[in-house]
Amino acid sequence: MLFFRNDYGQGCIPEIMELLNNTNLNSFVGYGEDDLCLQAKSLIQSKMIDHDVDIHFISGGTLTNKTVISSVLRPFEAVISCDTGHIATHETGAIESTGHKVITVPNVNGKLTPQLIRKAFDEHMLTYEHLVYPKMVYISNSTEFGTVYTRQEIEEIVSICKELDLYLYMDGARLGTALMSGVDYTLNDLAEWCDVFYIGGTKNGALMGEAVVICNESLKPFFRFCMKQNGAMMAKGWLLGIQFKGLFENDSFYRAAKHANSMAQKLQDALSELKYPFLMKSETNQIFPIVTDKEYEFLSSVVDFEIWEKQDQNIAIRFVTSWTTTKEDLDSLIEYLKQAKALED
Amino acid sequence: MLFFRNDYGQGCIPEIMELLNNTNLNSFVGYGEDDLCLQAKSLIQSKMIDHDVDIHFISGGTLTNKTVISSVLRPFEAVISCDTGHIATHETGAIESTGHKVITVPNVNGKLTPQLIRKAFDEHMLTYEHLVYPKMVYISNSTEFGTVYTRQEIEEIVSICKELDLYLYMDGARLGTALMSGVDYTLNDLAEWCDVFYIGGTKNGALMGEAVVICNESLKPFFRFCMKQNGAMMAKGWLLGIQFKGLFENDSFYRAAKHANSMAQKLQDALSELKYPFLMKSETNQIFPIVTDKEYEFLSSVVDFEIWEKQDQNIAIRFVTSWTTTKEDLDSLIEYLKQAKALED
Amino acid sequence: MLFFRNDYGQGCIPEIMELLNNTNLNSFVGYGEDDLCLQAKSLIQSKMIDHDVDIHFISGGTLTNKTVISSVLRPFEAVISCDTGHIATHETGAIESTGHKVITVPNVNGKLTPQLIRKAFDEHMLTYEHLVYPKMVYISNSTEFGTVYTRQEIEEIVSICKELDLYLYMDGARLGTALMSGVDYTLNDLAEWCDVFYIGGTKNGALMGEAVVICNESLKPFFRFCMKQNGAMMAKGWLLGIQFKGLFENDSFYRAAKHANSMAQKLQDALSELKYPFLMKSETNQIFPIVTDKEYEFLSSVVDFEIWEKQDQNIAIRFVTSWTTTKEDLDSLIEYLKQAKALED
Amino acid sequence: MLFFRNDYGQGCIPEIMELLNNTNLNSFVGYGEDDLCLQAKSLIQSKMIDHDVDIHFISGGTLTNKTVISSVLRPFEAVISCDTGHIATHETGAIESTGHKVITVPNVNGKLTPQLIRKAFDEHMLTYEHLVYPKMVYISNSTEFGTVYTRQEIEEIVSICKELDLYLYMDGARLGTALMSGVDYTLNDLAEWCDVFYIGGTKNGALMGEAVVICNESLKPFFRFCMKQNGAMMAKGWLLGIQFKGLFENDSFYRAAKHANSMAQKLQDALSELKYPFLMKSETNQIFPIVTDKEYEFLSSVVDFEIWEKQDQNIAIRFVTSWTTTKEDLDSLIEYLKQAKALED
Repeated sequence: MLFFRNDYGQGCIPEIMELLNNTNLNSFVGYGEDDLCLQAKSLIQSKMIDHDVDIHFISGGTLTNKTVISSVLRPFEAVISCDTGHIATHETGAIESTGHKVITVPNVNGKLTPQLIRKAFDEHMLTYEHLVYPKMVYISNSTEFGTVYTRQEIEEIVSICKELDLYLYMDGARLGTALMSGVDYTLNDLAEWCDVFYIGGTKNGALMGEAVVICNESLKPFFRFCMKQNGAMMAKGWLLGIQFKGLFENDSFYRAAKHANSMAQKLQDALSELKYPFLMKSETNQIFPIVTDKEYEFLSSVVDFEIWEKQDQNIAIRFVTSWTTTKEDLDSLIEYLKQAKALED
Repeated sequence: MLFFRNDYGQGCIPEIMELLNNTNLNSFVGYGEDDLCLQAKSLIQSKMIDHDVDIHFISGGTLTNKTVISSVLRPFEAVISCDTGHIATHETGAIESTGHKVITVPNVNGKLTPQLIRKAFDEHMLTYEHLVYPKMVYISNSTEFGTVYTRQEIEEIVSICKELDLYLYMDGARLGTALMSGVDYTLNDLAEWCDVFYIGGTKNGALMGEAVVICNESLKPFFRFCMKQNGAMMAKGWLLGIQFKGLFENDSFYRAAKHANSMAQKLQDALSELKYPFLMKSETNQIFPIVTDKEYEFLSSVVDFEIWEKQDQNIAIRFVTSWTTTKEDLDSLIEYLKQAKALED
Repeated sequence: MLFFRNDYGQGCIPEIMELLNNTNLNSFVGYGEDDLCLQAKSLIQSKMIDHDVDIHFISGGTLTNKTVISSVLRPFEAVISCDTGHIATHETGAIESTGHKVITVPNVNGKLTPQLIRKAFDEHMLTYEHLVYPKMVYISNSTEFGTVYTRQEIEEIVSICKELDLYLYMDGARLGTALMSGVDYTLNDLAEWCDVFYIGGTKNGALMGEAVVICNESLKPFFRFCMKQNGAMMAKGWLLGIQFKGLFENDSFYRAAKHANSMAQKLQDALSELKYPFLMKSETNQIFPIVTDKEYEFLSSVVDFEIWEKQDQNIAIRFVTSWTTTKEDLDSLIEYLKQAKALED
Repeated sequence: MLFFRNDYGQGCIPEIMELLNNTNLNSFVGYGEDDLCLQAKSLIQSKMIDHDVDIHFISGGTLTNKTVISSVLRPFEAVISCDTGHIATHETGAIESTGHKVITVPNVNGKLTPQLIRKAFDEHMLTYEHLVYPKMVYISNSTEFGTVYTRQEIEEIVSICKELDLYLYMDGARLGTALMSGVDYTLNDLAEWCDVFYIGGTKNGALMGEAVVICNESLKPFFRFCMKQNGAMMAKGWLLGIQFKGLFENDSFYRAAKHANSMAQKLQDALSELKYPFLMKSETNQIFPIVTDKEYEFLSSVVDFEIWEKQDQNIAIRFVTSWTTTKEDLDSLIEYLKQAKALED
């Protein structure tokens, strides 16, 4: 069966597997203080030459969001997210479990806007002390809808965050695809803009692992205590070093994301041509066509993918590409999509 | 200045003050295990003759909601509330601070509906394990908008709660006004319908105090441990016993609420007659007229009240009556409202 | 039956009851922002003329400790207490419920010492990042054993706190009795020494209430958010203002504590004369004699008091005096103690 | 430099690496619901033929302890551990961060005893409601001191747990070495005795991973919600399936532990012969000799190991063996120990 279910359905890029094999019997100090972690951090730091950042590796996204957010906020402080944000939905209340409210506002194409941030902030100031205090803005880039923040959009968010004294935290579970979508900014810009962000490995070719980048000096101290308390400090920490060494040593991180985007955009074009409607037009590696029940029935018998949203008559589905998607996979999928369309006629 | 700001702006009804004076030098065991608490519980229990409930006294509403909800839910379980619910707004994230998400849905006249509950539940089942598990329904009665659930509305909510195996928790901060608004149900019915509810004293003539009523047998054990851990077990616990003995010994609880409702409804009628628009028509002791900037300016110079919501052109304000509101207060307010109206013309 | 069970078994001093009666029908703004609170704060502030402190009123001790400690510490930070400290024992895990470990060390006559603090700190530095970070020192004064810290003892603790960058928090549930035990320091000194402390009302003549005094500038902002989130912000906040106005307007706070101490010390002298052994010699209003089973049986039939600790053969019991203890109560108790002693012979 | 620092300083056993390589490009469903996880669970279940257990894989020990304990306990409930227990020390307050107190009692050779459990329980019943409620017993096997519970010791602990209605939770971070130390019990017995336990992979040949075994029927439901909320549900969950398939397919789990024990016991014998004193005699793969400053200085220049405890004159150190320790490593270490001893003479 064709696999378009997600971008974390296979193992890792060959560079990582090779490092795993080659270092398996070496001896390392534990808890992320080994040489491989140091090398990986150094490689990532080299992409942000204008900034002196702290980098930490954590095995997955929910654990990362939970550790970062609970490390930064005081008990009564809250984080603003749009309603499609990962922390507002698919983390089984991980943020609330650390005591913090997620202030949820409607999304605009999967994104937060300065207007939504200001509105949420102002409302909370109106009943001061009786509502939580909004202190952090959470954005995903690329978003859960495959869209990407433009330079201008981020700069406007940065500007309102500075004005209102809010931390900006970017969830980069799919940051590679954002950076490879044609935008005019880099990791170096993100280090300028964000207080904290993370570079996702799990969904871009690693076995696991997210690289937390702490840019704001005041948020750096004691982060490893927070990691340990959250169970986010791996005993064999060098395994995470290996992931990011493998991703960044030869820019595989960028190549993998570019490939995923390219496959996805070809798929989106083909879907358009076949007159499939979309829930949302994506700029990255997640594509959201809307299909009929009949089309769904056929497609789900030959392709592995996810239902995104049940609508009154139709079904919005999600196809995801990754570094493992081949041209043959894509051609087969498009062929199936043609057959599905023919069923309806 | 006339006081229509809220229903907790003065001390207590005379019956309570008398008890306080008469028992001040008596000796009591602490932590709510004294005779006055026993007497008060017995009085309240006598209003629910078909049910054997556990009753506990806690000093205020937020502390009560926090203690009850965290006592009932497992870590990954969440409570459904409408967006105007007290726990969703004016408790500075108290529920989240105990680790639980408040699933917020739009209100219908300040109320939750079975449809909204089912929709929220179903959405959470769709991405099972990745979203929190909705396990409790929270309703305020009377609501934050002064509206009251009918018998049928509650029965339908009870029915869906039983179907979906959800606990029903009623916040009765203003329960007296609900029961005195003309509904055809009593405390005895609430003991049948709710797993837990509380009878508000603070906003109905007591110095402080809410009476938690635990009806569901499985939720009774160890509640006092939860109280103590939340700082909700008063050393001089008999003070809370005094409040509820005073409220229920001669049905002052009902009389106080009835009086507040009556004053408020007269006010609402007068406002209608004066052609003031309303944010919401109330059935109890909170009234929500909409005024112009000019009207607001005048009124706020002579009456103490709260702004409820700023609208584009106008201002929704709130007048609240209580057991202390006199006919003279009401007449004066209506006179001011006439003058305000005249300003506009 | 004679009452020597505790110092919170009766209502309040007459000054407070009078204020309650006189203000009962006045109208106040809620949540502690009323004039009576302002007056009470001003009275307390006047006792600390060299310091500009923030003062907040909370209804009870556990709620105060929980709110203060969780307001100050980051998630991985812990508080050092001796094993008899209230937060380490009789708060049903309230501190842990906010996420913080209480590092418990052995007591020396109910007290912490600089040596114990340093040892605990050093041990935690040895396995840095894998143990919690000790960041606060908690001491009770007077202690749970009725002992009192001397000026020198506190100064030495302050000194090590400054050296190790630890916050010093003093639980003053029975601070009145400490200050009236003959020590050469005052509230003004405490404001110099502590980052935060609280002045206990509940156990010294108030119906309820503790006055939190925040001395460290960096800990002042947003404390009211923490109060609200913890359910520690009373709707009718002026009731707490009344307690402390009543206690401090005419120095009743000091007189009440002095009286309690004086009664207790006379009792302790009588016990010595009667050759009762002691668990601990007390300097304040809690006295800890050791009695035989036979003595216990007789005494408990005529006096209301607490068992403190069961020993192999004997029982350590606790007699507590307060502002309500009369000379007649004392004489009767001493007479009973004589009779109990005679039983044994 | 010789590596005797710990048992998690190298990668994984060859069987696991082979599985990783062979499955790297296969497509899997996420979150631990793949075939490899099913196979691994089935292999583990087959070792407990008399019991029907639930098995879940989590990446590390602290995350496992935190998820299990917070899943089982109500907010006011606490877990009893001896003072050397991992949850009482080296987890940076992870258990407290979920709101639960760890009741810490003195260890007896690194172990808990029925007497210690009963004493802690009884003390907490004495001041009912004002102290936390002990509801779980936590034991590590093998212990942090390398000792192992005998069948009789566990049976007596099980017996008191049943009597007092306490859950028994065994931390099996080093369970392999316990089972291979010559005891007369197996995983099948543990499934009979424990409510929950875990089988440690990280310290016995896996890259990462602990297998949680839930034996008590009432603790099984919704555990995956707890995992997700704690960030303990890996996206590429099959990686953990691979670890345990590799460990259990050919009993490598047992062989690895047996080898580590054998190397360690030879080392302990050699140390005895060389007249090194011990902090504690171990039955498994951690050895705790005491060395002088001079010996330490020399040894630490040629061997990588940990200081365990600084004593007045000497230093207790820890040597750990694992599946990677070779006979040559051992011989070299013993040679160095001889040289160190000669220095002193």
